[in-house]
Amino acid sequence: MKLELSRVVQGCRLGRLTGLGNSGQHSLEVPGCLLYTRCATVPHLTQDTLHTLRDLPSVTQVSVDSLAEHLEVLEEFKEGVRKFAGLHDTVVFSSLHDSANSSPAGHVTNKTVSVWGSGGRIELTVARFMAIQAAIQPDCYQSMADGETWQAGTSRKRVRKAVDRTLAHLDECLVLHQKSQGLKRAEIFGVVEGGDILEERLRSARETGKRPVGGFVLDGFHSAAMDQDVRVQLIKAASAELPQEKPRLVLGVGHPDEVISCVEAGVDLFESFFPFQVTERGCALSFNFIIDPDPETAGSSTPTVLEFNGEMPAVKKLNSNGDENMTLYEMNLKDKRYQDDFRPLVEGCSCYCCKKHMRAYVHHLLVTNELLGGVLLMLHNMAHYLGFFKALREAITSDRLQDFKNRVLRCREVD
Amino acid sequence: MKLELSRVVQGCRLGRLTGLGNSGQHSLEVPGCLLYTRCATVPHLTQDTLHTLRDLPSVTQVSVDSLAEHLEVLEEFKEGVRKFAGLHDTVVFSSLHDSANSSPAGHVTNKTVSVWGSGGRIELTVARFMAIQAAIQPDCYQSMADGETWQAGTSRKRVRKAVDRTLAHLDECLVLHQKSQGLKRAEIFGVVEGGDILEERLRSARETGKRPVGGFVLDGFHSAAMDQDVRVQLIKAASAELPQEKPRLVLGVGHPDEVISCVEAGVDLFESFFPFQVTERGCALSFNFIIDPDPETAGSSTPTVLEFNGEMPAVKKLNSNGDENMTLYEMNLKDKRYQDDFRPLVEGCSCYCCKKHMRAYVHHLLVTNELLGGVLLMLHNMAHYLGFFKALREAITSDRLQDFKNRVLRCREVD
Repeated sequence: MKLELSRVVQGCRLGRLTGLGNSGQHSLEVPGCLLYTRCATVPHLTQDTLHTLRDLPSVTQVSVDSLAEHLEVLEEFKEGVRKFAGLHDTVVFSSLHDSANSSPAGHVTNKTVSVWGSGGRIELTVARFMAIQAAIQPDCYQSMADGETWQAGTSRKRVRKAVDRTLAHLDECLVLHQKSQGLKRAEIFGVVEGGDILEERLRSARETGKRPVGGFVLDGFHSAAMDQDVRVQLIKAASAELPQEKPRLVLGVGHPDEVISCVEAGVDLFESFFPFQVTERGCALSFNFIIDPDPETAGSSTPTVLEFNGEMPAVKKLNSNGDENMTLYEMNLKDKRYQDDFRPLVEGCSCYCCKKHMRAYVHHLLVTNELLGGVLLMLHNMAHYLGFFKALREAITSDRLQDFKNRVLRCREVD
Repeated sequence: MKLELSRVVQGCRLGRLTGLGNSGQHSLEVPGCLLYTRCATVPHLTQDTLHTLRDLPSVTQVSVDSLAEHLEVLEEFKEGVRKFAGLHDTVVFSSLHDSANSSPAGHVTNKTVSVWGSGGRIELTVARFMAIQAAIQPDCYQSMADGETWQAGTSRKRVRKAVDRTLAHLDECLVLHQKSQGLKRAEIFGVVEGGDILEERLRSARETGKRPVGGFVLDGFHSAAMDQDVRVQLIKAASAELPQEKPRLVLGVGHPDEVISCVEAGVDLFESFFPFQVTERGCALSFNFIIDPDPETAGSSTPTVLEFNGEMPAVKKLNSNGDENMTLYEMNLKDKRYQDDFRPLVEGCSCYCCKKHMRAYVHHLLVTNELLGGVLLMLHNMAHYLGFFKALREAITSDRLQDFKNRVLRCREVD
């Protein structure tokens, strides 16, 4: 695995992660995202339906919480989660938690962390954590980490303990990693903790950076944990301590504005749980990320992923339908206003849902609880989110990041 | 629409319904089934996923109960449910109720019947029923009917009233049908009622047969309504009163043994809600319907739809997992025994699920409530059910119906 940076503009790192996969055949453009899954499947979608999407990430993320209960079965199966789940040829990144769920706090000890499977809490020592990773057979995985530092009022002492534990876990993981036959070709990503305390973030980054890891996971930066300004400052500072040639994946960050600010702070990789969360509340991503053609280069080969009809996102207020998590980037298709709206979700979008179906029909499926509703929304939302990342890379390439930000953030200025 | 019968063997009618669809371009082999939908979609499946199945029926069934609430929207849309739901080129048959649901009794009056949408009960006069059909724009539809005669102890007087009302509704429907522009090319199927009272069944069939209808719907014969022997006797008797050249669709009958006995009694068409019900309880159809090659014709062109591995259906007892509706034709994939079963659902099955996935993985999806579980089961169950109908037609063609029955019913003799 190798990160080839082609440009660094205003802190944004543009490049390509190469040499991924068993025989190094895969690569991933950065800034970019991993493919979100639950139980190693993109929710609602068969592999064939998924592959109607363009520009799918070559890296699929699985999480230990949904697989821990099935350790014995995976061990008996012997061939790893990629084959178990019938995935197409893909790189597998294995993380600890599913960022779409929030885990209860208060279950971390010096020697263990806990994850929640369908049958409840599962306590993991490093040994068990590594046994699960060996059964999953990922190409990359994060080391075990104590991430319980995001609650308001977490003391400096608790944060320091989290950093210490996480470094100790990493060292233990590295020892077991060396001995593991199944993980021989895999790479470990070390986890940077430190809550909102700058010096702990710096210490965590510096110490983790000294270990023989393939990349870094930035943990504890999700929306509920801290304000955007604080997040950006901390990530910028921590980034400066990390080797430049290794990728940084931030966990728990998904909103487009947060993604952009993290990229400016030096983050390369994101998860893609956000389009899934949008799907589960019956919403469709509808924000505009297409910047107007630059008059000077108009007519050249700037690709247009989606052609929008110029209308503002349909949902202008938060909580219009009682879902407190709804953002300004999405439209609530359960809303009655869409019952006789015969347009596609997003005009010009080339996803299967937008090519074949109307807002009125998706509304109808959602209000009658038909399961195809989720299938169609998931397809659209993934397509839209992947389109956003592609457009972000193109904006950095063409030195038009400010235009891109203005476009994406415009919908937030309506309030 | 025309029914061309090629053989009638032991009461079974083998043939082809031709001239279906707007320009008569579609046909449907009988005995056969319609494609079950809810809200005009096959549950869980996109049209593209659905079309990975072989031998899909050319007729899609929609039901008034899931569309009644959206009458105004469909009227505004103007182009019918086929286009509203983004269906591929297909014939649409519109019926009153969704046979996968049971409706509460006690809501029929002289002039109205009730259906249950997502928002509760909707009372339909003939005028409203016909307005909904005109908005749906089906190719064929059943007339409005009073089917509340299936509860134990329904009096002869009540059954007679149901027959009278249903004939009156049909006559009213026929008058409005003549006047409707949107239904100009559609055909009405008259509904035969009569509960379990032979003379009422005969009267209903005789009177309905006199009307200018395109075919017949046999109502009130579902599993809960009566024993199989009674059903067969009544259908045989009623069939004899119906014109031979028009198709007969029985509602509410889905189990393979019931299908076979209905075919022997003269039924041509069935619904396909049964594979959906099996899917919703986390089960996979696994009964064997492949008859051994006839030694005399072995090596000839007898097609083999599926190659079974000869094992008996895995579920040998009803209620093994608390689902009282589970039948002997299916295996309960939520059962722990499948957690480390690395075989396909049915060996040799060529559906997407069986080609790509293992029982252990489908089990994993089901116990963790991942929605892909339903998608995969629905695909397999529809493929299996369609394969059963195809094999049934082939058995009639090759005079091997008894072998076929022995094969299909074998699993029921285990108890």
